[in-house]
Amino acid sequence: MNHSFASDNYSGVHPDIMEALQQVNHGHAGSYGSDEYTANAIQKFKEHFGEQIEVFFAYNGTAANVLGLSTVAQSFNAIICSDLAHIYVDESTAPEKFIGSRQITIPTTDGKIYPADIENKIQRVDDQHHPQAKVISISQSTEYGTVYTIDEIAAIAEVAKRHGLYLHMDGSRISNAAVSLNKDFRTFTGDAGVDVMSFGGTKNGMMFGEAIVFFNPDLARQFKFIRKQGMQLHSKMRFISAQFHALLSKDRWKKNASHANAMAKLMADKLKRIPEVRITQSVDANGVFVTIPKAIVPALQEEQFFYIWNEKLSEARLMCSFDTKEEDVERFVMKLKQLLTLTSEF
Amino acid sequence: MNHSFASDNYSGVHPDIMEALQQVNHGHAGSYGSDEYTANAIQKFKEHFGEQIEVFFAYNGTAANVLGLSTVAQSFNAIICSDLAHIYVDESTAPEKFIGSRQITIPTTDGKIYPADIENKIQRVDDQHHPQAKVISISQSTEYGTVYTIDEIAAIAEVAKRHGLYLHMDGSRISNAAVSLNKDFRTFTGDAGVDVMSFGGTKNGMMFGEAIVFFNPDLARQFKFIRKQGMQLHSKMRFISAQFHALLSKDRWKKNASHANAMAKLMADKLKRIPEVRITQSVDANGVFVTIPKAIVPALQEEQFFYIWNEKLSEARLMCSFDTKEEDVERFVMKLKQLLTLTSEF
Amino acid sequence: MNHSFASDNYSGVHPDIMEALQQVNHGHAGSYGSDEYTANAIQKFKEHFGEQIEVFFAYNGTAANVLGLSTVAQSFNAIICSDLAHIYVDESTAPEKFIGSRQITIPTTDGKIYPADIENKIQRVDDQHHPQAKVISISQSTEYGTVYTIDEIAAIAEVAKRHGLYLHMDGSRISNAAVSLNKDFRTFTGDAGVDVMSFGGTKNGMMFGEAIVFFNPDLARQFKFIRKQGMQLHSKMRFISAQFHALLSKDRWKKNASHANAMAKLMADKLKRIPEVRITQSVDANGVFVTIPKAIVPALQEEQFFYIWNEKLSEARLMCSFDTKEEDVERFVMKLKQLLTLTSEF
Amino acid sequence: MNHSFASDNYSGVHPDIMEALQQVNHGHAGSYGSDEYTANAIQKFKEHFGEQIEVFFAYNGTAANVLGLSTVAQSFNAIICSDLAHIYVDESTAPEKFIGSRQITIPTTDGKIYPADIENKIQRVDDQHHPQAKVISISQSTEYGTVYTIDEIAAIAEVAKRHGLYLHMDGSRISNAAVSLNKDFRTFTGDAGVDVMSFGGTKNGMMFGEAIVFFNPDLARQFKFIRKQGMQLHSKMRFISAQFHALLSKDRWKKNASHANAMAKLMADKLKRIPEVRITQSVDANGVFVTIPKAIVPALQEEQFFYIWNEKLSEARLMCSFDTKEEDVERFVMKLKQLLTLTSEF
Repeated sequence: MNHSFASDNYSGVHPDIMEALQQVNHGHAGSYGSDEYTANAIQKFKEHFGEQIEVFFAYNGTAANVLGLSTVAQSFNAIICSDLAHIYVDESTAPEKFIGSRQITIPTTDGKIYPADIENKIQRVDDQHHPQAKVISISQSTEYGTVYTIDEIAAIAEVAKRHGLYLHMDGSRISNAAVSLNKDFRTFTGDAGVDVMSFGGTKNGMMFGEAIVFFNPDLARQFKFIRKQGMQLHSKMRFISAQFHALLSKDRWKKNASHANAMAKLMADKLKRIPEVRITQSVDANGVFVTIPKAIVPALQEEQFFYIWNEKLSEARLMCSFDTKEEDVERFVMKLKQLLTLTSEF
Repeated sequence: MNHSFASDNYSGVHPDIMEALQQVNHGHAGSYGSDEYTANAIQKFKEHFGEQIEVFFAYNGTAANVLGLSTVAQSFNAIICSDLAHIYVDESTAPEKFIGSRQITIPTTDGKIYPADIENKIQRVDDQHHPQAKVISISQSTEYGTVYTIDEIAAIAEVAKRHGLYLHMDGSRISNAAVSLNKDFRTFTGDAGVDVMSFGGTKNGMMFGEAIVFFNPDLARQFKFIRKQGMQLHSKMRFISAQFHALLSKDRWKKNASHANAMAKLMADKLKRIPEVRITQSVDANGVFVTIPKAIVPALQEEQFFYIWNEKLSEARLMCSFDTKEEDVERFVMKLKQLLTLTSEF
Repeated sequence: MNHSFASDNYSGVHPDIMEALQQVNHGHAGSYGSDEYTANAIQKFKEHFGEQIEVFFAYNGTAANVLGLSTVAQSFNAIICSDLAHIYVDESTAPEKFIGSRQITIPTTDGKIYPADIENKIQRVDDQHHPQAKVISISQSTEYGTVYTIDEIAAIAEVAKRHGLYLHMDGSRISNAAVSLNKDFRTFTGDAGVDVMSFGGTKNGMMFGEAIVFFNPDLARQFKFIRKQGMQLHSKMRFISAQFHALLSKDRWKKNASHANAMAKLMADKLKRIPEVRITQSVDANGVFVTIPKAIVPALQEEQFFYIWNEKLSEARLMCSFDTKEEDVERFVMKLKQLLTLTSEF
Repeated sequence: MNHSFASDNYSGVHPDIMEALQQVNHGHAGSYGSDEYTANAIQKFKEHFGEQIEVFFAYNGTAANVLGLSTVAQSFNAIICSDLAHIYVDESTAPEKFIGSRQITIPTTDGKIYPADIENKIQRVDDQHHPQAKVISISQSTEYGTVYTIDEIAAIAEVAKRHGLYLHMDGSRISNAAVSLNKDFRTFTGDAGVDVMSFGGTKNGMMFGEAIVFFNPDLARQFKFIRKQGMQLHSKMRFISAQFHALLSKDRWKKNASHANAMAKLMADKLKRIPEVRITQSVDANGVFVTIPKAIVPALQEEQFFYIWNEKLSEARLMCSFDTKEEDVERFVMKLKQLLTLTSEF
């Protein structure tokens, strides 16, 4: 398939990651994480996030989110998140099934949630009849390709602390956020008050594997049992660990994410000059949200596939990836222009 | 790490599988299974198991078992299995958590369960106070490295049918069983009365990935939702599919398993000639169970690691794999003899 | 405590029900429902709802709702209901925990939900990533004391059928609805397309006990196991059955509910003449929703307790019951007027 | 139905309890436990169990057990109990469904479990692949009508403490045990090392209602949410509370249980003199287990019903209750003798 703008998980595996998989593929290694590659990968995470963290690897983002959340929410609790949160709209009812809890959603226009709205959702405290809000979950970068500033996160963390809630971050695209902010991971995660997070690997060039990072090690004490029970403990763990080790070494995570973000910027810059389309969200990371006249969508999708995010607005989501090429963007914009011209001719 | 006899998941990835991963790593592919590689891999499964099957891929064996079982057991049901079954002793309480059901175990001496014992466990039928037996789960090959004959499976299936139960197979080492029986997969699975099974990839040379095969397509109707909710839907699915396609092509599954089984036979043959040790189970597949004098176990483990299965008996489990070499076996036996000599000198 | 307007569960037990409890309290009776009283009570339900129904007794309304819903929703499903539904706001996360499913809510202004809004919530059909709408749940009478007409229910049932969904009714106050509609139970339940419902006993004069009524007997086939597992099977069942038998005999259900509804009407009639307060909902059943000036709420609550439903609007909920007396209403209104006068004097 | 020996839940409600229900049936009372009757009942429990306890009321014994256990077992934990434990054989898979955990059973010949066997089941500690034993659950009196001594309980508690496990007691027949031991409740519960227990009401003369008693108040901190979510919070709580208050006042619990125990003793004394039957268990509380020749069982059951506990042994369980009369026992024994004579005549 041609390079598309459908999702960063339409991409394959970055060659350096593939190389890392090859390199660890010799001899025997202890299973379930009792191998040196895993120890090394954990050490890499500590370099980035601080020595005090605990980190565990799982297979995918849904699992990283749900298992992480299960350490901060009991079954009678509620998790406050945006109504676009991946944990709400794209993970089936995995959180409900595994935790037994509820998500309480805040309508978002930019993918973010804000302190005043969050506080408004902390209701009926100590009332046994009603789900008790216990966690705030934010996505960084958001499902709208926007990025929380450090101050925005700290302000949410302050609300969490004040009300005795935990702060969870869905970081399936955290590298794109770090590049966007031009900050170290820890500055806008643990240092800003995040308690537990998902760290995304797959969408930034890995084959499979996500991580759950605990800034509060107490939360991690029984996590190995939770992961096993959650059916997320890989036997040949070295093949997840090697990928993370490679991604977090030699600034690969940054190069990949920088490139994806740059391609989104390039796309946005080009689209901005086309009067028939309108960019609807701030292009902070690797996604561009843009309205495209309905009539030309199918033909454009045929050229390079993308998803319509909002049917009514004919709003498209264009995701860039580590492997998006400048010519992919150019081809897309050219085709778009061409289709617009054809249409206007009628 | 040296080649060990610890587990078939201490091995790495078979070079052909690694090659297959490389080959599909270009361009974009539809995510979550909407790609041609997945369609091809499913077709491969149908070649082996019959056109009427439905097959889904998941990450690991625990998930394949639990998700598969969840289609045949409701929460008030019980699953009859051996007291050595992986679903009972090595999957935490994943079945209880995900399904809500109970495992009822039959003590086994050879890894198998038999019709009379199974029928004996179908108790208090229709009694609302008691878990209702609904599934029989067998492992093929078993956790003791033994292999059910087709007749043995058919006899169990007959019990299942007669009592309105389903038959589930944990096939994490099914290729070793097929080689051992020298039969096509379908002869001792669907044709013998199995309703749903796990098909193991990881222990036969894959990096990750297991399959759930439904011989009764009705059971599979809502499985895509169950898999997603079970946090087992991979986004970059082509990388599971490519492995399965390679494994099921050109008799690779058979070559790998044949080699592993042959190495186990070689090991057994050599051990049989040593009077100080005793082989405790029929060596049908790729595992050898053997008592080894306690005094020499640590030194032997240091040479090539293996697990003690039964502390009291000092019974070791020696697992062979696609990558076990004749010289690994020879080195192990030589070291064993050497240690026995040293010990006897005192 | 004085008679309050807090809730119909602040009331005690109707004397006839208490008498029925006394009458069955002799000798031994089969436990768990294997007694003649239970058989008789079930027969009474069939007289009211039709011979084809299946009915089971449970302890409370939350259980009746959750267990009933568990027969029509699988864990990956969603239940469409109003954002005031008891199953959403007053049953903790019991549905999420027991079923694993999600409630999708429709904002309501009158306690009801309507076909167009319901259809709008049936989204992403067959999309494995998203909860699949499978049940519509309505409350009759609603949490706002309003009552669906038969046509309104039939219209919702039509939506359900067209989309392959089930229709569930939370009938914790169904007797009040029947009286309001002046119709037999079956006309606006099974005959109107309801598949499964909760039938409330406690709020209409019983000590404890609710029923789950299945209009589609297939749904009930394994319900005895679900009830037991749901911890809702009473051992001395005759004491639930006797209450239901009494309630459904000699029009007691109707007398109790008629009285409660009449008291609400009386209250509403009197309140309507007071310009400082405003009745906010149609008084169809036994609840009156009315705004009361904030300043006088505490003093009024001290006289006869009631709950503030909406703090912002200072909207009170006044629930009447089988034991509400005319003088209770008069005293309340008198006190209200008196407090208004006192306040206006300043 | 005649007085039977089927179960203590075939009995009705003790007249004093019924009287207590009548007495609280006036006026309105705060719902869900916010009433004075509940406060008083809780105080009664504290008189018996100590001021530091926390106590909550639920509907039935299965719920009391499962909800109580859910405070000491996480989903990846195991609960060690006898293979006759009610939580294992008579509560469907309610524990598995609600907690997600597993019961590990110890075969019992007298209804009890003992320290050595318990320690033997604490296996694979800290091994993520295996359920982690965390709770020991004992029944007092046991399902075999036997009673643990204080020393026996203390010895089990010592094992629990030493291994970091909790001790749970299923006290559905705790009053019978207290009478048997002739000790205050606290001596063989909290003082002996029990952490959390179920206190049975229904089987000792109540209509409905069981209590969960926490000796460690930390375990109770969030229990109100667990009870609500567990669908066990009664709205008209005064009607459970009044029963418990009556039962725990004026030694009613003791009188009822003493009578039941005495009737069992009487039965046993009479049966011992009949050579054709054999009493199989120590008659410590209100149950007699006795082998009865198969041929006469049906005719005897017709006279006064009882359950066959063990078909193979033709072992009957004869349960006595607060309402068992001497003449019930005499009639049973007379009939038994008569049937034996008739049979021997052939």
